[in-house]
Amino acid sequence: MNGWMSLNDPLDNTKAFNETGLKEMMRLKGGSIWAGYLVPWEKFVFGVEVGQRYLMENTTLGIPALIQSEGLHGFTNNGTIFPSPIGLAASFDVDLVSQVASAISDEAEGLGINHIFAPVLDLSRELRWGRVEENFGEDPYLTGEIGHAFVTGLQSGKRRNVSSTAIARMAATCKHFAAFGSPQGGLNLAQVSGGERELRTTFLKPFDRACLESLTIMTAYSSYDGVPAIANDHILIDILRKEWGYKYWVVSDAGSVDLLITLHGTCSTRECAAKTTLEKGLSGEMGGGTYTYLTLPDQIKAGTVSKQALDQTVGYMLRTKFAMGLFENPYPYKDWNSTLRTAAAKELLHTTDRESIVLLENRNNILPLKKSIGSIAVIGPHADRVSFGDYVFFNATLNGVTPLGGFKQLLADTSVKVNYAEGSKLWSNDQSGFPDAVSAAQSSDAAIVLVGTWSLDQTLLWTPGTNATTGEHVDVADLGLVGAQLDLVKAVKAAGKPTIVVFVSGKPVAEPWIQANTDAVIQQFYPGELGGLALAEIIFGDVNPSGKLPVSFPHDVGTTPVFYNYLKGSRPLDPGAVLDNGNLKFGHQYVLSTPVPLWSFGHGLSYTTFQYSGLTLSPSTVGRNNDFTVTVTVRNTGAVSGKEVVQVYLTDILASVVTPNQELVGFQKVEIPAGGSKTVSIKVKSEQLAVWSLSNKWVVEPGQFLIKVGTSDQTFANATLTVN
Amino acid sequence: MNGWMSLNDPLDNTKAFNETGLKEMMRLKGGSIWAGYLVPWEKFVFGVEVGQRYLMENTTLGIPALIQSEGLHGFTNNGTIFPSPIGLAASFDVDLVSQVASAISDEAEGLGINHIFAPVLDLSRELRWGRVEENFGEDPYLTGEIGHAFVTGLQSGKRRNVSSTAIARMAATCKHFAAFGSPQGGLNLAQVSGGERELRTTFLKPFDRACLESLTIMTAYSSYDGVPAIANDHILIDILRKEWGYKYWVVSDAGSVDLLITLHGTCSTRECAAKTTLEKGLSGEMGGGTYTYLTLPDQIKAGTVSKQALDQTVGYMLRTKFAMGLFENPYPYKDWNSTLRTAAAKELLHTTDRESIVLLENRNNILPLKKSIGSIAVIGPHADRVSFGDYVFFNATLNGVTPLGGFKQLLADTSVKVNYAEGSKLWSNDQSGFPDAVSAAQSSDAAIVLVGTWSLDQTLLWTPGTNATTGEHVDVADLGLVGAQLDLVKAVKAAGKPTIVVFVSGKPVAEPWIQANTDAVIQQFYPGELGGLALAEIIFGDVNPSGKLPVSFPHDVGTTPVFYNYLKGSRPLDPGAVLDNGNLKFGHQYVLSTPVPLWSFGHGLSYTTFQYSGLTLSPSTVGRNNDFTVTVTVRNTGAVSGKEVVQVYLTDILASVVTPNQELVGFQKVEIPAGGSKTVSIKVKSEQLAVWSLSNKWVVEPGQFLIKVGTSDQTFANATLTVN
Repeated sequence: MNGWMSLNDPLDNTKAFNETGLKEMMRLKGGSIWAGYLVPWEKFVFGVEVGQRYLMENTTLGIPALIQSEGLHGFTNNGTIFPSPIGLAASFDVDLVSQVASAISDEAEGLGINHIFAPVLDLSRELRWGRVEENFGEDPYLTGEIGHAFVTGLQSGKRRNVSSTAIARMAATCKHFAAFGSPQGGLNLAQVSGGERELRTTFLKPFDRACLESLTIMTAYSSYDGVPAIANDHILIDILRKEWGYKYWVVSDAGSVDLLITLHGTCSTRECAAKTTLEKGLSGEMGGGTYTYLTLPDQIKAGTVSKQALDQTVGYMLRTKFAMGLFENPYPYKDWNSTLRTAAAKELLHTTDRESIVLLENRNNILPLKKSIGSIAVIGPHADRVSFGDYVFFNATLNGVTPLGGFKQLLADTSVKVNYAEGSKLWSNDQSGFPDAVSAAQSSDAAIVLVGTWSLDQTLLWTPGTNATTGEHVDVADLGLVGAQLDLVKAVKAAGKPTIVVFVSGKPVAEPWIQANTDAVIQQFYPGELGGLALAEIIFGDVNPSGKLPVSFPHDVGTTPVFYNYLKGSRPLDPGAVLDNGNLKFGHQYVLSTPVPLWSFGHGLSYTTFQYSGLTLSPSTVGRNNDFTVTVTVRNTGAVSGKEVVQVYLTDILASVVTPNQELVGFQKVEIPAGGSKTVSIKVKSEQLAVWSLSNKWVVEPGQFLIKVGTSDQTFANATLTVN
Repeated sequence: MNGWMSLNDPLDNTKAFNETGLKEMMRLKGGSIWAGYLVPWEKFVFGVEVGQRYLMENTTLGIPALIQSEGLHGFTNNGTIFPSPIGLAASFDVDLVSQVASAISDEAEGLGINHIFAPVLDLSRELRWGRVEENFGEDPYLTGEIGHAFVTGLQSGKRRNVSSTAIARMAATCKHFAAFGSPQGGLNLAQVSGGERELRTTFLKPFDRACLESLTIMTAYSSYDGVPAIANDHILIDILRKEWGYKYWVVSDAGSVDLLITLHGTCSTRECAAKTTLEKGLSGEMGGGTYTYLTLPDQIKAGTVSKQALDQTVGYMLRTKFAMGLFENPYPYKDWNSTLRTAAAKELLHTTDRESIVLLENRNNILPLKKSIGSIAVIGPHADRVSFGDYVFFNATLNGVTPLGGFKQLLADTSVKVNYAEGSKLWSNDQSGFPDAVSAAQSSDAAIVLVGTWSLDQTLLWTPGTNATTGEHVDVADLGLVGAQLDLVKAVKAAGKPTIVVFVSGKPVAEPWIQANTDAVIQQFYPGELGGLALAEIIFGDVNPSGKLPVSFPHDVGTTPVFYNYLKGSRPLDPGAVLDNGNLKFGHQYVLSTPVPLWSFGHGLSYTTFQYSGLTLSPSTVGRNNDFTVTVTVRNTGAVSGKEVVQVYLTDILASVVTPNQELVGFQKVEIPAGGSKTVSIKVKSEQLAVWSLSNKWVVEPGQFLIKVGTSDQTFANATLTVN
């Protein structure tokens, strides 16, 4: 859009455009238009209107454009910022995520955006990778369910003044297709190792579940078993088009068509890159590169590129546009302001920030704190900082409440004194702030220490000279706290007061000392704008925590991967340890550590307790094509109301191929009042029992399946399903 | 063999056998007989004689047995122990390795052994795995060449009194087939991720090169893309039998058929395990499990198992036996003693120990030390210790010379004083020995500190209560020095004397501080019996070091994998660092570290210098089926004679699939006198240019290939090959 508008100054509100630029842009690049700029909404709407009107009224065929922006966890043109995707997943609440996505669409739609680059369905199985925060965790099923909710929430509804043939108001973008989340060494864009079975049973599952109705899919930058994702016709054509019947537009990631030349070494010319990707199933090239598709007209003329492939790709793009009724109304709405930053969105945001917090440890029920407490110390580099993670706009954090701000707001009408000390910077070993932090702890009745990782907004993240430890292209070799942070926690704990550690982070922080030695540990994945308030509410018990981990926490980087659903036999255990006194306890797996996570997938404590009973499978014997239902009764046996995520895991006891030791096949979040109970029924589909067979097809094999209710490392009840 | 002999006491020399036991053993388990016991050779020979004679003279068909033992780096029935396989590979000398294998055969053959479980052709690409020391490094080509030399050395020749149809005197065992060396998390037996292309271009290459004439192959314990190696008919039948035409016996690893039941979850009965493995291409079940093959007669009778598969497997085993002429002479030789621990073997051992040492750093040419030096301190837990690595017999180390012993022997006739201090144990954080170590350094003119990893012999390694940091089933989560060792090095260095660090280890030790701060660093992979002497000879310049790294050294476990031949584009670089003063320098790949190795594959210094010139390709333009020759002249421009390993690397500039950024395609070790030069010609075969194509076949694609002479991270000369 900056081809016809001046969009560099986020404060400039001049509604003017450059006609030459407009014509030039629309001549060859008007099919899809990047509009992820932070400018006043009025000016933005003006620009979109100008562009779409030109296309509709001044071009031969009058084809409107896709107008594109980001919205992984909030619309990035100054919309409401929700928790990072990993935080959304921690809510384990598909309805909530669907509402969040719908709110993102609400904000974007009126402004004329019709294409949002979200959700990400990569799996966080390589924790060094910077983009873990953009994913919904390590599990294919959870990712598929949360992803499906996101796509549905984003797309559901219709644009105004379109006919009944329109089926969506916004194009979601399932990305990154496929197998992007396990780059070798955790290095961004690096190759991914894997075979057809791992592709089918792990990497593709979330896409198969969530994306068949998504109006666009974005390809990955990486290669899989030596084939660049962008030119992988096995995945893009055989599977996506022929097997799954996907009918919409498949676009590259920014600049990635050129990577065939510059990274993968499979083309030496732009002509080759354009031809190869087109003929192997890519139907659009995003900007950010050299626009190799501009070579296609000559190549088509010369007969060296398949005209049929071109016709098909045009068809896919038009179908995506028709599906939104863009030909009838591609324009912003006059009342665009009515759906931006509404009170309802803020309430939803508040709920989401609360639901995403995970209580990891709570020794002697130190939490919740009582408002009758005299004072608290709020300490640490994350105490007075807003951390949204990547894929937010420049200065988005100005809209956020810091944890310190949250405590002050929550405790405004109480007599609780709040003693703040930064203690250390996130990015430094400087310990000169420790004395103030220790003194704050000593003079308080409890200390809350906020440490973790950090990311930056989409402008700063790519600005030379800035620093971060998570986010796109920010890959770490160590999963522990950076700089002085661990020592800060130790110093505060040594002050002798109850010490609650809060990890504010975009990925698991691996610090076994903190797990073993502090009084409580809370995980707040990068939150939304009300994250600071929600955290205070959790700590003081205004809200009972109900988030669960969508990703397992390792002891350290050397014990990864740590995902719970490893293949049978792949996690031998004879742990050793370096003991606190320096003594070495020798084991074999590992010699001085353990592959068992600190906290495993699905873990998350509550201020109340739940008891499970009456697990039944209905039916408990099924045919190969029959679904079944898992029913269990959950009683709140504690003193306060709370929410529980009922999780159902399955183990295929005997199979023709090696299957996961367990895998999540269903979950449901329910609220149960103190003393009350609920009977929860979760349907498991027949296809969830299938293995990718030695004959390379999905087969449900007869036999016994263990059905477990609990978390990935804790069983509350189990039963056996028989398949005949 | 302990079925008819009492073999538990290594010192007992009673030549007696149990007839009932003999008959029982031979009734159902007499096809291959484990004989890896440490007992007096006379008694051993007696036992083999009894067993073979019984089979030849008292069974219906008179089929002699395979008599099996270990010999990865020395015959484990009290034979000469050579450097560990990773050390053998560091010699980069195929002739030498062939001689070593031949010496192992010499020792085993006379005693009646006809089947040695070696070599290992797994690739050391996952450094946490305990068995890295058993491999020939990270590179498929080097592993294939060293492996081929080993197989050839072990097998070449004929047993006595056999006819001309015999083609080998010993059965080698290529193991572990296939893709065993990259277990997930570095955990022994864990699953391996990968697809067909990675299988072909990486894991299978060494086997394809080295094993077609090997009389046996042993399968892996692990699964690959969800298929247990032991029941992978794609690999065992389609590739090994049909494509490669392999004609000999394929045996399981110990107990691994049962793992289909206990680990992989693909069978629930022994009948299933026996049937599945037999029909999917396994032709023998090693002991160590429940002998599932004993279920086969009933299954064959019942018609539930393929009789044809059984006939085939019998054929494979008989062919292996006929290939050695065992039907004509399966017995030990009367003069078995004449080929055991000979003077020639000892000389070969001495050479091999010298050739395997790698000089990693040599600041200001601090090495070699002069014998005119007044005194040296020999410090560290490896100073007075013999470390052979795993796969050696109980107490084998008693035959070895420690480094301290080596210095004393070498310096016996000089005035150099040797001050020894242990400093610390390998397995402890106790620093109480530091003052003695520092004082030894202070009172000497140079300090040599020997630190590293440790393994144990085949008895102790599996004894509860023992400890080790490398070896089979000993997997680490950290690649740094254990316990007080790094601090010991720092303390000694702080004493102010020139400090030479020797890593004695079975895998790369990741200690960047040592690389950056000491005066010299030597890598001695677990050596042979004369390792201590060879090390002293290297340090004092009696021998010019010529070993090269067969495996790259990472900065730490979090920056792995670090192998040099990664696929194009998979190692983005924008390094950060934690500086010595504690300051943090932020980067992106990685945020505070680097994926670049401390020392890369092929690296190794000399006390002289070499200059390369006149690189030519002959021809420089070839057809798709033509080999070519790389010729280069190497001049010794230093003051002493030395050996250089000329290494040739290839980059496929443009390919239809993603190829390695570079790969080794040839090498040759040559000795060049000071001031002299040699012209070296290395042939590269056409097939080494091939990619595993998108159509799943080997294809040499026309185009340009960069040919480089140097090491994996240093180029001395390059040229371009054109393939038409």
